[in-house]
Amino acid sequence: MPTLNHTTLRTFGYTIFETVGVPADQARILTDHLVEANLMGHDSHGVIHIPGYVKGLQQDRMQPVGNHKIVRETPVSLVIDANRSIGIVLAYQAMQMAVERAKEHTLGAVAVHQASHIGRLGAFPPLAAAQDCIGLLMLNGGGRFTAPFGGTARRLPPNPIAISVPTFGPPMMLDVTTSMVAGGKVMVASARGQALPEDWLVDQEGRIVTDPAAFLNGQAAMLPLGGSVGHKGYGLGMMIDAIAGGLSWAGCSAEQPTRGGSGFLALAIKIESFIDVAEYKKEVQILIDWVKSSPTMPGVERIYLPGEIEEERKRQREVEGIPMEETTWDRILTTADELQVPHPEL
Amino acid sequence: MPTLNHTTLRTFGYTIFETVGVPADQARILTDHLVEANLMGHDSHGVIHIPGYVKGLQQDRMQPVGNHKIVRETPVSLVIDANRSIGIVLAYQAMQMAVERAKEHTLGAVAVHQASHIGRLGAFPPLAAAQDCIGLLMLNGGGRFTAPFGGTARRLPPNPIAISVPTFGPPMMLDVTTSMVAGGKVMVASARGQALPEDWLVDQEGRIVTDPAAFLNGQAAMLPLGGSVGHKGYGLGMMIDAIAGGLSWAGCSAEQPTRGGSGFLALAIKIESFIDVAEYKKEVQILIDWVKSSPTMPGVERIYLPGEIEEERKRQREVEGIPMEETTWDRILTTADELQVPHPEL
Repeated sequence: MPTLNHTTLRTFGYTIFETVGVPADQARILTDHLVEANLMGHDSHGVIHIPGYVKGLQQDRMQPVGNHKIVRETPVSLVIDANRSIGIVLAYQAMQMAVERAKEHTLGAVAVHQASHIGRLGAFPPLAAAQDCIGLLMLNGGGRFTAPFGGTARRLPPNPIAISVPTFGPPMMLDVTTSMVAGGKVMVASARGQALPEDWLVDQEGRIVTDPAAFLNGQAAMLPLGGSVGHKGYGLGMMIDAIAGGLSWAGCSAEQPTRGGSGFLALAIKIESFIDVAEYKKEVQILIDWVKSSPTMPGVERIYLPGEIEEERKRQREVEGIPMEETTWDRILTTADELQVPHPEL
Repeated sequence: MPTLNHTTLRTFGYTIFETVGVPADQARILTDHLVEANLMGHDSHGVIHIPGYVKGLQQDRMQPVGNHKIVRETPVSLVIDANRSIGIVLAYQAMQMAVERAKEHTLGAVAVHQASHIGRLGAFPPLAAAQDCIGLLMLNGGGRFTAPFGGTARRLPPNPIAISVPTFGPPMMLDVTTSMVAGGKVMVASARGQALPEDWLVDQEGRIVTDPAAFLNGQAAMLPLGGSVGHKGYGLGMMIDAIAGGLSWAGCSAEQPTRGGSGFLALAIKIESFIDVAEYKKEVQILIDWVKSSPTMPGVERIYLPGEIEEERKRQREVEGIPMEETTWDRILTTADELQVPHPEL
């Protein structure tokens, strides 16, 4: 298994995407997003996507940001038809547009439809937190594999929400699905030959399923977040669907959503309009100290904050490198070969 | 067990609260809120609170709305020091203020600290939905009885969120805690002598507890929402704490929160600024039809929407009356006697 330096990986990615016509600034945003997902340990959202994105760009299923259209606008809000724009780049821009509106008007919201895959949701709200705003992003997207509460069939996407608030240190960052887990978690368990916890999947007769294969072959549905109180995750998922799908013009979940694409809403709240930023961060620090003072479960070393594990892994992998399966790396190199991009020195 | 007509109960409540000095319009909002909680089946949030609220008003722990102060303001936002205002009345007004700002500026947000108990959270966002807005309300409040993920001690309040969106019918309404359940659910199980599901509570050594008594006597902590993925509910709870506690000046959760009271944030989003309202409702209807088409679990008759069970129970209890335990009704009658308010004819 090769271990890759993140700087090497970034430079390599910039070149690959620029070679297929992505402007340099966008190639940088896109690659950095993928590499940072790897740094944070979310390898399912990392550079493993380079071959697919390159193919998407070559086949015009996605295109550089620039041909999107604003379809509705107020001083604090925008609705954007992404027109197959690179979702990750557009989501960064959408979050930034929301922040700019919030800086001027306290609140800002940008809704987008017809973007391509927007990657790791948790990457965007910290952009707001770094500018003394609270950032939220809700996505109506991903495979529609989650059963409604009381149901057995696949209906809702994982409909995730990401939130970030500033602290005296790195922003707190939450990025969670309203299904028990994201589909990628089942794939990982499958690859490792592991059985799943008993509150993740049901089959068409409503029986608990722990074999990941049943999910991957479409026979089982994911349960909504909540365990014995799954109506809560189901309800959250429905509301995110109605907000992100409904406001963005993507359309809510259905067999064939109206316009589709990743429908999302980016929302920014300017803290200073409510409370002085220093005072705000002091309050968040009080919260952090309070939860961290909790005794831990047996075998648990300490209480982590939302996003803290990712921050630590990032610092570690920046030094030690990013481990990558041979097959993933080979596929990226093959893509580079096809574009006549030279391999990086490792 | 007496069964009470909701109209009788309303008139009775108006008189009781007016007798302790609550202005007629506020007595109406307050009583209607409590009676509607009973109608919807949330008896723990209903008229059972009349004796306590009366005592709170008499002892000046809560007072009619009117002496609150706006401590920070922009055209789209307010921060209010509730100054012990009746929380339920102020929360209605705060949601309405957010809606008025959203109607004019697309988005509106009102944050409040030092309110008294704000009752059933789900009552407020539908006020926005009825005016073609999306309504959200986040509360940093309630007993701090939830363990952080990986922890065993009581640290976070249930930190609930309520959301409502308009449909062609009654608004969809979500009202959920980010702990597995609200404390009231454990009390109900205790009263009925029922054991709890295995994903609700842990003791100080991190062992699963199913005896409600261990929670009620303070020995056990509630687990965060999520079952085997409790880091998700924990993360949501942390973010709601940081948003509702931090922005409202109430202060985030701690042994002694800075200013305390129910710290909440009401947020309204004007739909028309994003998409035509008729188009929006059509999308939500598509979603409703899609999830309702799911086959159901054995023993489950049909798929319910968030808030639908409450709507049905309300229609039923409006006709059949509200059943109430003798002891609860007796306590309310005793309160009336003390105020020399005549008993209603049943």
